[in-house]
Amino acid sequence: MSTRLKYFGAAGYEIVGPTHRILIDPFLSQNPLAPCSVDDLATPDVILVSHAAFDHYGDTAALAKRTGAPVVCDAAVRFMLLDEGVSPDQITPTTWGIVVEVAGLVVRPVECHHWSSGTLSDGRQVVGNPIAFIVETEPDVRIYHYGDTCIFDMRLIGELYRPTVGLLGCTLPRELSHLIPGPATFLTGEMDADEAARTAEMLQLELAVACHYLAPDDEVRRFVELVPHHDTTGRRRVIAPLVGETLVVDGERHWIERSES
Amino acid sequence: MSTRLKYFGAAGYEIVGPTHRILIDPFLSQNPLAPCSVDDLATPDVILVSHAAFDHYGDTAALAKRTGAPVVCDAAVRFMLLDEGVSPDQITPTTWGIVVEVAGLVVRPVECHHWSSGTLSDGRQVVGNPIAFIVETEPDVRIYHYGDTCIFDMRLIGELYRPTVGLLGCTLPRELSHLIPGPATFLTGEMDADEAARTAEMLQLELAVACHYLAPDDEVRRFVELVPHHDTTGRRRVIAPLVGETLVVDGERHWIERSES
Amino acid sequence: MSTRLKYFGAAGYEIVGPTHRILIDPFLSQNPLAPCSVDDLATPDVILVSHAAFDHYGDTAALAKRTGAPVVCDAAVRFMLLDEGVSPDQITPTTWGIVVEVAGLVVRPVECHHWSSGTLSDGRQVVGNPIAFIVETEPDVRIYHYGDTCIFDMRLIGELYRPTVGLLGCTLPRELSHLIPGPATFLTGEMDADEAARTAEMLQLELAVACHYLAPDDEVRRFVELVPHHDTTGRRRVIAPLVGETLVVDGERHWIERSES
Repeated sequence: MSTRLKYFGAAGYEIVGPTHRILIDPFLSQNPLAPCSVDDLATPDVILVSHAAFDHYGDTAALAKRTGAPVVCDAAVRFMLLDEGVSPDQITPTTWGIVVEVAGLVVRPVECHHWSSGTLSDGRQVVGNPIAFIVETEPDVRIYHYGDTCIFDMRLIGELYRPTVGLLGCTLPRELSHLIPGPATFLTGEMDADEAARTAEMLQLELAVACHYLAPDDEVRRFVELVPHHDTTGRRRVIAPLVGETLVVDGERHWIERSES
Repeated sequence: MSTRLKYFGAAGYEIVGPTHRILIDPFLSQNPLAPCSVDDLATPDVILVSHAAFDHYGDTAALAKRTGAPVVCDAAVRFMLLDEGVSPDQITPTTWGIVVEVAGLVVRPVECHHWSSGTLSDGRQVVGNPIAFIVETEPDVRIYHYGDTCIFDMRLIGELYRPTVGLLGCTLPRELSHLIPGPATFLTGEMDADEAARTAEMLQLELAVACHYLAPDDEVRRFVELVPHHDTTGRRRVIAPLVGETLVVDGERHWIERSES
Repeated sequence: MSTRLKYFGAAGYEIVGPTHRILIDPFLSQNPLAPCSVDDLATPDVILVSHAAFDHYGDTAALAKRTGAPVVCDAAVRFMLLDEGVSPDQITPTTWGIVVEVAGLVVRPVECHHWSSGTLSDGRQVVGNPIAFIVETEPDVRIYHYGDTCIFDMRLIGELYRPTVGLLGCTLPRELSHLIPGPATFLTGEMDADEAARTAEMLQLELAVACHYLAPDDEVRRFVELVPHHDTTGRRRVIAPLVGETLVVDGERHWIERSES
């Protein structure tokens, strides 16, 4: 058995395990490096959306409407999906701690120290509670998606839910920075390389996966260097997939497959 | 001296100590197991509302209007109460850390890792900051109400404010799940039995009280089993009242009284 | 080299280092003890706003419009500034972990366990994510502004970012309490003296500065007593400036200058 994680860029993944196909934060149509379009995607068993930011919410509405797939998300994302015409019967709102089962998959939302805010078509702000997700795709493969959290003491999450693979933001998709107004320069994402490498240790991951970029930058390379530096187990592996590549996790091994498309 | 906690179901309690009558999260009219109606309740000295979710906000507006009692709550609940016609002079908004005194009772709001959102009569969303409360009803009886928090490292709260009795959500009121739209099944509440039992240890409680259910389910029974399992003091007691029952705390003893009504 | 921090009262400071002039939470026109008016202020390199509460947001809009200075803030403050006519080109929204550089100054937002909500001119609520800031004004002078957080385990913030000077709320500006509606009495601010003194230890500060008052009260005096009590380094210094005074930090020394104006 193996689990395949195709990287879309930003925090977007298609995760295909032995029993379920899961989309997380599907950011494609505004993504200059998108390896496929939303129309190319197979119907997922579930779409998980961490929060309402545009590079995470992405194409969720179009995808939900085309495929009819259920969505698990926070209330801000739910408001936005309803506003875009997605059926309420497709959307399950949840928040930290409330474990849900959808299409036979158990989805565990855990704390994400970030925020979630969107704008409806009439200009109103809607606000939710951002989510980091843990899903077990097969026995002993528990995938943690960070959902744009900043660093905090995640040791309790590591102890209680024992994720094995962590998708950890360590920089920001700099190609999108011009979309954010204002005079300042964004130096880091919600976590920098060192902070992300420390969360890999706090979560006691087996495999730390760089996340939250389009083209890899120096922070991604620094993450790859720093994960071993903060590793007290001596066994932690680290990888930084390119957009469009597929990370295959097979027991204690993992490898990258180049995309065909 | 003793303190009496009557359980309404969900997270609702009427707490009567030697000096004050306190209502928390009074959820009655939509509660299929409600042991009384809002009209049956004696006028409280204060109503505490943890957040704007329907099973916590409950009948606060009707109760506040009938009795004139002061309400301590977050800003979302305040917006909703004003929208329902409660006088602003009755409502004190507060948030984590800001200790208030009302009717001679000291109310300590502490961190609650959840969220608080409501909808006004015109459809607008209002958002606040959910609250867990600690109140001292008599010397050495300090009651912690969890306010729907998920698990987090509560040791600092335990050390600083030394609650003795904790009302801890360990499941969800499954009878209400059909009111939440969407395709998923809710497996747990914001905390499951194991998480709640761990918080009893982090808070160093003397008495852990199961909370957030109507009819007790397997998680409630598991909570009763797990509290001793996580107890390093060897002295922690645990109880799971039925809706309508009254928990009496008298020094180091406690017992249940069946409701007369 | 030295860094000068002029106290405006509440959580407002003008911080002038060797290279930058920074305003934080400029609360003046509604401040009965304001040492100057917004028109008296020199143009800052940047204005930092922790959250949308009136005693922190203060005169930011007027100041931004008069001076054209850039503002770094959360989304609620940004909505309010836009509503008051500040140009979007002046405003950079950020949140926890996303380090920004503006006018050559590196601004680090860290977790602030509070909340941020404002009201627009049309009555709509806007909500953001409150920020505590760390800025390095000169080598080895890293200033932490607490942004109205309650106490939480800040040791990770201390370890990672090593602030040397902390502006720590330890009470509340009681002169403003009458502006908050409701029947209760506010006993403490988001942190009391003991909690604030404990955060000085968790952050491993060299110099703990009392914050969040107008005229100093007993809590401010208790903070000055308790900082040494919680100090495991034996070297921590503490000070409580009066409104209008300037705290000068020069290497391992600090002193107070009375305001001339």
